[in-house]
Order: sequence, then structure tokens, then C-alpha cells
Amino acid sequence: MIPYSELTPVELEKQMEAERERFEAYKKAGLKLNMARGKPSTEQLDLVSDILTIFASPEDCFVDGVDARNYGELSGLQCAKNYWAELLGCQAEEIFVGGNASLTLMYDTISKAYTHGLLRSEKPWCKLDKVKFLCPAPGYDRHFLVTESFGAELITVPMLPTGPDMDLVEELVKDPAVKGMWCVPKYSNPDGYTYSDETIGRIAHLKPAAPDFALMWDNAYCVHEFDSAFQPFADILTLCREAGNPDMVYEFASTSKMTLPGAGMSCLAASKENIAYLTKLIGVQIISYDKMNQLRHVRFLQDKAHTLKLMARHGEILRPKFQTVYEKLQKEVGGLGIARWTEPKGGYFVSLYAMPGTAKRVWALCKEAGVILTGAGATYPYGVDPEDSNLRIAPSFPPVHELEQAMDVLCCAVRLAALEKLLEK
Amino acid sequence: MIPYSELTPVELEKQMEAERERFEAYKKAGLKLNMARGKPSTEQLDLVSDILTIFASPEDCFVDGVDARNYGELSGLQCAKNYWAELLGCQAEEIFVGGNASLTLMYDTISKAYTHGLLRSEKPWCKLDKVKFLCPAPGYDRHFLVTESFGAELITVPMLPTGPDMDLVEELVKDPAVKGMWCVPKYSNPDGYTYSDETIGRIAHLKPAAPDFALMWDNAYCVHEFDSAFQPFADILTLCREAGNPDMVYEFASTSKMTLPGAGMSCLAASKENIAYLTKLIGVQIISYDKMNQLRHVRFLQDKAHTLKLMARHGEILRPKFQTVYEKLQKEVGGLGIARWTEPKGGYFVSLYAMPGTAKRVWALCKEAGVILTGAGATYPYGVDPEDSNLRIAPSFPPVHELEQAMDVLCCAVRLAALEKLLEK
Repeated sequence: MIPYSELTPVELEKQMEAERERFEAYKKAGLKLNMARGKPSTEQLDLVSDILTIFASPEDCFVDGVDARNYGELSGLQCAKNYWAELLGCQAEEIFVGGNASLTLMYDTISKAYTHGLLRSEKPWCKLDKVKFLCPAPGYDRHFLVTESFGAELITVPMLPTGPDMDLVEELVKDPAVKGMWCVPKYSNPDGYTYSDETIGRIAHLKPAAPDFALMWDNAYCVHEFDSAFQPFADILTLCREAGNPDMVYEFASTSKMTLPGAGMSCLAASKENIAYLTKLIGVQIISYDKMNQLRHVRFLQDKAHTLKLMARHGEILRPKFQTVYEKLQKEVGGLGIARWTEPKGGYFVSLYAMPGTAKRVWALCKEAGVILTGAGATYPYGVDPEDSNLRIAPSFPPVHELEQAMDVLCCAVRLAALEKLLEK
Repeated sequence: MIPYSELTPVELEKQMEAERERFEAYKKAGLKLNMARGKPSTEQLDLVSDILTIFASPEDCFVDGVDARNYGELSGLQCAKNYWAELLGCQAEEIFVGGNASLTLMYDTISKAYTHGLLRSEKPWCKLDKVKFLCPAPGYDRHFLVTESFGAELITVPMLPTGPDMDLVEELVKDPAVKGMWCVPKYSNPDGYTYSDETIGRIAHLKPAAPDFALMWDNAYCVHEFDSAFQPFADILTLCREAGNPDMVYEFASTSKMTLPGAGMSCLAASKENIAYLTKLIGVQIISYDKMNQLRHVRFLQDKAHTLKLMARHGEILRPKFQTVYEKLQKEVGGLGIARWTEPKGGYFVSLYAMPGTAKRVWALCKEAGVILTGAGATYPYGVDPEDSNLRIAPSFPPVHELEQAMDVLCCAVRLAALEKLLEK
């Protein structure tokens, strides 16, 4: 393949004609494919069908003397705390067990920061003139939206293969209006980068001017390797404690991509003081999250070793899908000098960086041909990618043969948009 | 029995001696009984054991083309909306299906009013100097706490057997700082009163000065008769719409006291405009509540007729417990002129009005003898009963023989506290 930059205008025109013809053919095929959301496939959900029949009789609903069916146990069943503590490498006293969505726990943390203040807040954030939040980007659109919805100013921090640009972060946190940072530290959404030990160390040692700086540590893919053995990962709670920042961090995780996305179990991990403070506030809104679902999960997932075996089976289903993405990209746009992409070994996403100024056009072309991608720009604060380059590929849901079709369309769109761009100059 | 008011001081002294002796005997018995919370009994939970085995295989998880296991369907499964609409007498489009706690939906409604404002708010409540909330009392402590936790000023409205004192409510809502009112319209907590048609009509026709006045209509006991057939109840959404107040009302309900208190299904019912507005805000915090639990409940409860059959079985378990309370009160303190109480035919609570100025003392005496009651005063804003008279009895959890013991202790405490009071004058 010859890089487009080495082609003459006439050759580019010819290429474009060929791409447009191919594109029209895709359009005629009437495809209806979706690579927009990190949604586990039906095949993955079928892996966990035994969780449907965990309870056979009332006796099964008791654990450690607690009837999981009834009211009580605000912060969660002890066995669920133990499970999460082992998985995350923290202590059971540092766990609050939530409902079916870790997003809700994140939202509630920010919401309570606004209405009541966090443990170390001088006042509720709604009483402040200005709240700023650091958003390593590209990142997770739903994170950014939570803080945006409360009126915080989102500050973009470039994502590097080692994690957020820490030189910049260390500068930015000197501003007392900077109240926190969103992080997906392992297999980041969408790049699939895992923060380096150095980055994590520097994060733990941050000296933010805001006493209530909230490190929102969304460990969504903590055991989600699909192409390697489990990669051990530092316990951020321990690191923050050792760095003298015990109350700075709020870690989140869930089983959404281990068991059932719509009916999983989530957790918040934080210092005992934070857990005590937040539990008191959460006690006003709920008597306890669904303990039956907590018990169902602990009985099914058992422990870390057993969970990793399940995750390996998820990985077997996911691996060929990601490989399809990597191979198609290599074959169809590699060497043209118009795109680069990441090739993570875990998580749920691939970042594709199309020629700057073409991501929106690629997205629109794909849509025209029946392939739905996450909106171009969605991975940046306010939905605006300054380079108009990043596209998030979520290959988990479609079967491989559909994915191949979808990737053909996407690659065609990447080429076509690049050619249009090059020829308009 | 002779009323205490007709006894001479010497006779009262004698009575007190006898009561104290009896009380000491109770203390020695080392009881450990709890009538504090409206907690269904284990026998009731065992009624619904078939809900544990609703799902046998992956195929069971599909409904109307939706895979309940996966992400999606923010406002809930259609079948769950249909279920609630039939139960409450509203339309399916007026339903948002929540998680295992209607309290969370209530909290979130108030929380969003503070951080974002409600549909008709001029600004978020956190930007206002003053927010006041009407609290018919005695009422539900957790309701009051929600608004108190956000800094609202709680205004007590006397509860009458027909519902809140509407003359007063109609006056109070002329103050634009009055932003809403808590209601448990059927078998109110703790009196067990059902609002009269006149009261409900006047509520629907309120003309609050605040455009975003929030009628918090907690229909917690909508099908919870234990000593009569189901009592049909007006749909407040229709009444408010007909009165020109379509967006004033937020109705809440849950299956906590139909199936499993720790793992039920909740709902919010409101105008389509309110549902659309709140769904957009809720979409920032969750992808959907637990749809597996929604489907589990719809399959188990089926429809209103089937639900009422189940509720009749709950009633058979609850009825003897409430009768024990009524009979003990009649036998042990009736005719002494020192206490009155309510005798509801549904719901979960009985209000006992001890001699004014003695409720705290009664509570402390009971505790001393191993009987836990809801804190005296808890049923009033800020936990302060101006009469120090009301005690909430929750007879659902203990078996009848324990309840008899607990009621003996309570009645003894009511008499003893009254005698102490009469003799200190």
C-alpha cells in the first residue's frame, strides 16, 4: 500500500472514485450493524446462566445469619465486601456494595459533593462559584457527562499511552477550583491504555490545592484481560494512604461485564473514613441495595480465582473480535498514512485515530451505510474532539462475521473521508 | 377499669407500686423484642419463594424482544410499566421503573430539585435562600429526613383521620418558599389513616404559589389491606391533571412489602412531561435499573388480580398480629383515660398516643425491658413530637407470641409512665 501523501492529485481522484463506488455498494447492502457501546454479546451472557438458578429455596437466602431477602445491611453483605476486597486488593472495611450500576455510585458521589460536600469539603460544591474537573481525553463520555450535568468546567488532559499527562495534571491541581479527576486506570476507555506504575505513583502523590479533591478511579476493567493472563494491578487505596492522601480516592468497580450488564453488582472502595461518611449520607436514600443480587453474585463468582477463570472464558469470546478489528485496520488502512489505532489486550474498546478533521465525516459515512459508531467527539469533554480524529470502536456485541462487514465499511469510510479531505485542499 | 383521673393520690401510688413490680419482673425475663420497623416477617417472605426460581434458562430472560440481562431500557421494561399502571390506575407512559427502593426514587427527585430543578422550577432549589416542605405529622421519619438532609425547613401539618389538615395546607402553599408536601395517602405511616375523597380532591386542586410544588405521594400501601377486601383508591395523576395541576404530583410505590423488602421493584408515576424530564436527568446516573428483577417480578406477580390474591395471604399473616395489638391495648390500657390508638385495616403501623409528656419515658422503659420501639418523636419533623405522646407500633415482624409479650411490656410502660407523670404534679 502506498501512503496517500505520495500520490498525485490525479491518483487520489482515481482512488476516491474507487472508494466511492465501493461505498455505494455497501450502502446498497442495507447493513444494520452497531459498534457503539461496550455491550457484552449474547454468547457472553450465556456463559453465566448458572447465576439464574442460584436460589432454589428460602434457606438459600441466608448468609452469616442475615436474611438477604429482608431489609437491612446498608453497606452491603459482609461476603460481598470480602469478595470485592479480594478482587481489588483492598480491605473489606473499605468497601460499600451498591446496586446494579457503578455509574450510579459515581454519580451519587459527585451529587453529594454538590449538595452536602465530601468528607474534607469546606462547603458543598453548589455553594462555590466555580468547580473544575480534570478529564483525561479521549475518555468515557458518561464520566464527563456526570460532572458536566452539575455545571463543572471540564478540563481536557491529554491521554498518553502511560496514562494522563502528569506534568499537566500536577500543574492543574494547584488551582483550588480543580476538585477532581476521572480515571479508567486499566484498559482505559477508549484507548485501552493501562496507566504505568510511574503515573499511578504520581497520581497517589498529588498535592491538590483543594482539600476535597476527588480522584474518581473507575476500575471498570480490573479483571478484563482478553488476550493475556490477569495483569496484577496496584491497590490505589494503599498507594494513596501511603502517600498521605488516604481520603482522596474513590474507586469503583462492577460485575456488569463479568455477569449480567443489566443486573450486576457494583462497589465503591474508599478509606474507612470516607465509607463511614458516605454511608451516613447514603442511609438517607436507601435501606440497602439489593442484597439478594449481592448474594447471588458471591455464590456464583465465589472468589478472585474463580472469577478469573470466568473472565478467561469471556476473553476467548472477545479475543477474535478484537483481532478482527486489528487485522482489518492493518489490512485496509495500514500503510496509507491516514490513521493509527490502539491494540489493547483487555477492556472493551479500541481507539481509532482517523486523519485529523475527518472523524465526524467518517461517522456520518458509516451511519449512511448502516454502521453505528459512538458519536465522533463523544470521547472528549463537551463532545468536542479538537482534532476531530478519534473514533471509539466497541467490537464486543456483534458476531465476528458482522464485525468484518462493519469494519470493511468503517475502513472504506476512513479512506474516503481522507481522500475527500486531501482533495479539498 | 377505672380511669386514673378518678383515683386518689394514695390509690395512684398503690397502682404505681404494682406496675413497678410488674415492670421489674419483665426486666428479669431478659426479653429481646423489636417492634421498631415495618419489616415483613419470615413467614411472609416464605410466601413468595417461587420468585426465586422464575428464571431457569437464558430464554426466560427475553421479553418483548428485549434481553433483560443486557444494557438498555432506561425507563424500565414495558411489561413492568404495564404492571404498575394497572396497579395504580394510571397510564404506562406515566411510569418510570426503579430499583429495589422507592425511597431512592423519592430522594433522587428531591436531590434533582436541589441540583437541577424540577420541570417547572425557575432555578435549582440549592440557589434559593429558603425551601420549606410540608410534613403531615405524625408521618414517616425517612420522608422528613430526606428533605431535612437538604436543608429544607420542615413545617408540621397535623394529621387528621381524613388526612392532612387541608385548611392549614391551603394557607401554607400560598408561601412560594413552600415547595412540596410528603403524603402517605393510604394507610398512612404511622396512623394507618386513608385520606378521604374530600382531602384528596382538595390536594389535587391546590394552588401553590411555587410553580414547582412537589406533591410527594408515597402510595406505599396501595394494595396492603390485611383486614378487608382491596379498597379502590383514586388515581392522583388523573385528579391532578383534571384539576389543572398535571405536573404537581410524583407518586411512588414498590413491591417491598409484596415480595422481598431487600430486593423488590419500585416505580415513580408522574405526568408524561415529568417522566420525560426526569428520565433525561436519571439517564446521567444509570443505564437502566435491574431489568432482570423487573422481569422476575412481573412474571411472579403477573397482574393486579394475581397480586391481590398474594396480598390476601400476607393479610392472613398480618391480621392476627394487628388484632393482638388492638386487643392488648384495649385490655391493658383501655378505659384508664391515659392513651388512645388507631386501629387500621391495612398498612404496617399502629399509632399509640400515650399520655402527653410520657412517650419518651415509655420508649425508655420499653428499652430497659428489652422491647425496641421506633424512637419517640421520630414520627415528627426533626424528631420532636410537641406533645411527646405518639409511639409507632410495627407489629409485622415478631411472631404473635412474642408480640403478646412485647405488648404486655409496652402497656405496662404506658401505665407506669402515666402514673409517674400524674404523681409528679
